[in-house]
Amino acid sequence: MTDTYLELVNSGLTKKLAQQLGLPRPARLRRHRPGQPLLDGPVLVLGTGPDADAVATLLSSPAGGPTAPLAADTPSVLDGWDLEVHRHATPDVRYAAVVLVLTDVAHPDDLTAPVLAAASTLKTLRPGARVVTISRPALDTDAPAVAAARQGVDGFLRSLAKELRAGGTGNGLVVAADVPVTAASVVAGLRFFLSARSAFVDGQLLEVDSDAGELPADWEQPLAGKVAVVTGAARGIGAAIADVLARDGATVVAVDVPAAGEQLAQVANRVRGTALQLDVTAADAGERILEHARARHGRLDVVVHNAGITRDKLLANMSDDKWSSVLAVNIAAQLRINEALLTSGDFVDAPRIVALASTSGIAGNRGQTNYAASKGGVIGMVRATAPLLAAFGGTANAVAPGFIETEMTARIPAVTRQVARRLNSLQQGGLPVDVAEAIAFLASPAAGGIVGRTLRVCGQNMVGR
Amino acid sequence: MTDTYLELVNSGLTKKLAQQLGLPRPARLRRHRPGQPLLDGPVLVLGTGPDADAVATLLSSPAGGPTAPLAADTPSVLDGWDLEVHRHATPDVRYAAVVLVLTDVAHPDDLTAPVLAAASTLKTLRPGARVVTISRPALDTDAPAVAAARQGVDGFLRSLAKELRAGGTGNGLVVAADVPVTAASVVAGLRFFLSARSAFVDGQLLEVDSDAGELPADWEQPLAGKVAVVTGAARGIGAAIADVLARDGATVVAVDVPAAGEQLAQVANRVRGTALQLDVTAADAGERILEHARARHGRLDVVVHNAGITRDKLLANMSDDKWSSVLAVNIAAQLRINEALLTSGDFVDAPRIVALASTSGIAGNRGQTNYAASKGGVIGMVRATAPLLAAFGGTANAVAPGFIETEMTARIPAVTRQVARRLNSLQQGGLPVDVAEAIAFLASPAAGGIVGRTLRVCGQNMVGR
Repeated sequence: MTDTYLELVNSGLTKKLAQQLGLPRPARLRRHRPGQPLLDGPVLVLGTGPDADAVATLLSSPAGGPTAPLAADTPSVLDGWDLEVHRHATPDVRYAAVVLVLTDVAHPDDLTAPVLAAASTLKTLRPGARVVTISRPALDTDAPAVAAARQGVDGFLRSLAKELRAGGTGNGLVVAADVPVTAASVVAGLRFFLSARSAFVDGQLLEVDSDAGELPADWEQPLAGKVAVVTGAARGIGAAIADVLARDGATVVAVDVPAAGEQLAQVANRVRGTALQLDVTAADAGERILEHARARHGRLDVVVHNAGITRDKLLANMSDDKWSSVLAVNIAAQLRINEALLTSGDFVDAPRIVALASTSGIAGNRGQTNYAASKGGVIGMVRATAPLLAAFGGTANAVAPGFIETEMTARIPAVTRQVARRLNSLQQGGLPVDVAEAIAFLASPAAGGIVGRTLRVCGQNMVGR
Repeated sequence: MTDTYLELVNSGLTKKLAQQLGLPRPARLRRHRPGQPLLDGPVLVLGTGPDADAVATLLSSPAGGPTAPLAADTPSVLDGWDLEVHRHATPDVRYAAVVLVLTDVAHPDDLTAPVLAAASTLKTLRPGARVVTISRPALDTDAPAVAAARQGVDGFLRSLAKELRAGGTGNGLVVAADVPVTAASVVAGLRFFLSARSAFVDGQLLEVDSDAGELPADWEQPLAGKVAVVTGAARGIGAAIADVLARDGATVVAVDVPAAGEQLAQVANRVRGTALQLDVTAADAGERILEHARARHGRLDVVVHNAGITRDKLLANMSDDKWSSVLAVNIAAQLRINEALLTSGDFVDAPRIVALASTSGIAGNRGQTNYAASKGGVIGMVRATAPLLAAFGGTANAVAPGFIETEMTARIPAVTRQVARRLNSLQQGGLPVDVAEAIAFLASPAAGGIVGRTLRVCGQNMVGR
C-alpha cells in the first residue's frame, strides 16, 4: 500500500537521479491536519464584477469567529478565512491559490484577460497550489456566445490541471444560474478545493445546484452533532471514511459483515462509535441500520454506501454468479436500504446519502463490465434519489475514486500497478483518506446545494471514455 | 500519416512475431465503401418487449426499395436492411453484431439476462463486430432503481467496448423518454453504429432527443440534393469531409484561406463542387458564404465548421497572441458566421450545423489551454445554437476527434506519436475519413432528432478528465 517510487523521487540522491533521467516526479501531497492554515500563502482573485468582489471579500474576512453575512442573500454567517487576498497579479509573489471568478463571461474573448493574468503567476506558484474557477453552466437556453464562453471554462480548466506540477490542482465550481456565489455550497466547495482536503481531486468541475445548505459554526467540525452510518467500514476506504467523519465531529456507526467483526470493532472503538454487524444485501438491512442508529444514538443523519465488491472477468467469461453478486452488493443493496430510509419517516432532518461510485462506472474498465454497471448504477441512483430527499433538505451524491492505494490495489501485479498509479495528472495513486475527505464534504450541512452529483477523486485519471 | 506499426502487426512474419511478444495488435478497421453490405453476418437482437421486437423487425426488413412504415409513429418509409436476425443467442453462430434493446429495464437486475446472453456470443464474434445498446437516459425524475439500471448501461457498454478486439466496437443510443425506437434518428443512428462508417467511434453513447428527422430514400445518398459548406477544406480532415459529403450526394462548397487556394481548387474539382477563398475570421465571412452558396448553388443546407488552428504552449508561457488567435479562429469565427446564417432568413430548410470540437475540449490537454477553451466553446456553442435552429427543423451538433492521422499529428515526435495513437481501445489513430463519416451522419436529414450533442470519434481515447 506504499508507493515506494514516490518516496524515492522525493528523497536525497534518488530525487536528483530522477530529475536527471526526466522520470515522472510525483509530489508528496499535503493532506489536511486539524488546525493547519487553509493555505500557506496569498490568494489571487481574478475576474471582474460583483461576484469576484464577493469572493475576494469572503476570502479576506478576518479570522476569529463568525462575521456578519456577506450579502443579503447569504444564507449563513461565515467564519473568517483570514487570507491575504490580491486582486491583481503582483510579479514575484508566490501565490498559494488563484481563484478565477468567471460567472460574468458572455463571449469566449472575455476569458482572455483573467486567463492571461493567471498565466503570469504559474511559474512562481507554491507547491500544492490551487487553481479554482467559479463559473456558470453552459445551457441550451444561453445565447450561443455565452454558452461557448461557459463551456470554454471547462476545457481550459481541465487543460490547466494537467499543466500544474508539485501537487498543484485545478478544479472548478459550476454554479447554477439563480444561485449566488455566496451560497453555502459555493463557499464550502471553494474552501474544499482550496484546502488540503481535496489533495487528490484534480481537473474536476462540481455543479452547485441550489442555495440550500448551512455553513458550519466551526470549519474543523462540520459534522458536529451528526450520526453517520458507514457500510464496509472494517477496512480500506470504509475505515478511512469512519476516521474522517469522526474527526469532523460525527458519531459513526461502522457497518460490515460478521466475518469482518474483529476489524470492525477496532474501527468502531478507534472512532468512539458503534459497530453493527450486517450484510448489506439482507432484506432488512435498512431497517436494522435505522433501528441501531435510533436505539444507540437517537438519530440518523448520514448514510455512506461504501460496501462494495469486485469480481473481475472479461464479459466473454462472465458467470451469472460473478455478474449478479456484484450488482447485488454494489447497487441493489443501496437501492433497498434507501427505500427503507425514505419510507421510515426517520431520515428527514437534512439527511445525506453519499455513495461510492468509481471512475470505472464513468468510463468503463476492461474486465469490469459487472462492476462498471453497478457503479454506473450508483451514479444514476443518486441522481434520482436526491429529489426524493430534497423535501427534507436532504441530498444524495456520489464520489468516484480512481486509483486508490488500498489492500485491493496492492494485489494488482507490480508493473501494472506502477503504470496505473501514474496515469493521472498527479502521477500517483490516491489514499483512502482522499476519498473520505470528499465524502465528508458531501455529507456536511454546507453541501446541501449539491444535488445528485458525482465527484471524481482520481487525480484527473486517464481513462478512456 | 501512415501507421507502419499497424501494417507490420497485420502482415506475414511480423504478425506472428507481434503475437509471440504479446505486443498490441491493432486491427485494420473496415471502412465504408458504397455498395458494400451493412454487415457480413447475422445480427443478434437481445431484450424483451415491443421495442426489441420493433428493432428486430427493422433489421430484418427485406431489401429492395422502400417498405411500409414500421409502425404508426414511424416518421418515414424505410429501405430494407435485409439482415439475418436472431432473437436468441445460438451457439457457434459468428455474429457480426449484437444489439441490446434495454429501453424497458426498471432495475439493475433486469440487465442480467440480456448481458449474459450477449456474453455468450463474444468469443465467436466476427472481426469488426458491432455491439450497440439502445436505452433511455437516467433522469432525476426516474425512480431510483430505474435510473440506476439506465445509467448502469453506460458503465457496462463502456467497459465492454474496452474488451472487444479485432476492430470490434461498442456504442449506444440513449433515446429520450418520449421518442420511439423507430424514430428516424434512432434508426439512422443504429445503422451508423452498425456500419463501417463508425469504424473509429467506440465506447460512445449518443443521445437522441426528438423524433424529428427523415430517413433517406437511399442509404448511400443521404445528402442527395443538399448544398454543404466545409471550412478549412483544402487539406486533412476538411478535405476528407468534402469527399465524404460529396460521396453521400451533397454539392460541396469548399472554403479555405487564399494561401491554400491551389489545394482548395483541387479539392473542389475532385468533389465537383465550388471553391470559396475566405478567411473565416473576416467580419463578413457568414454573408460571403451565404452569397456564394445562393449564387452558385441556389441554396445552403449544411455548414461544417472545420477550420481550426493550434498554437500549443504551456499556459505559463502563453502569449496574448497565441491565446487570442486560437479563440478567434476556432470559436469566435463560428459564432459570427452562425449569427449571419441565423439572421439571413436563407438557412431555414432543415439546416444543419456541424462543428469540429476535440477530445481536448472535453478532457483538456497539457499545452492546449487555448485550444481546449476554444473546443469546449464549440461544445457549448452547438448546445445553445441547436434550439435556435429547431423552429426550422434544424440542428447543431459537434464531432470531437481524438488522435487522427493527419499532417498535423505527423509532426508530433515519433515516440510520443506511437504512444498517443495506441492510447485508445482500438490501439490506433483514426483516419480523417472517420471524422468525416460522423459529420456526414450528423449533417443528414435522418439525424434531425440529435440536437446540440457532441459525438466523440476517438476509438475510446484514454484522456484524463
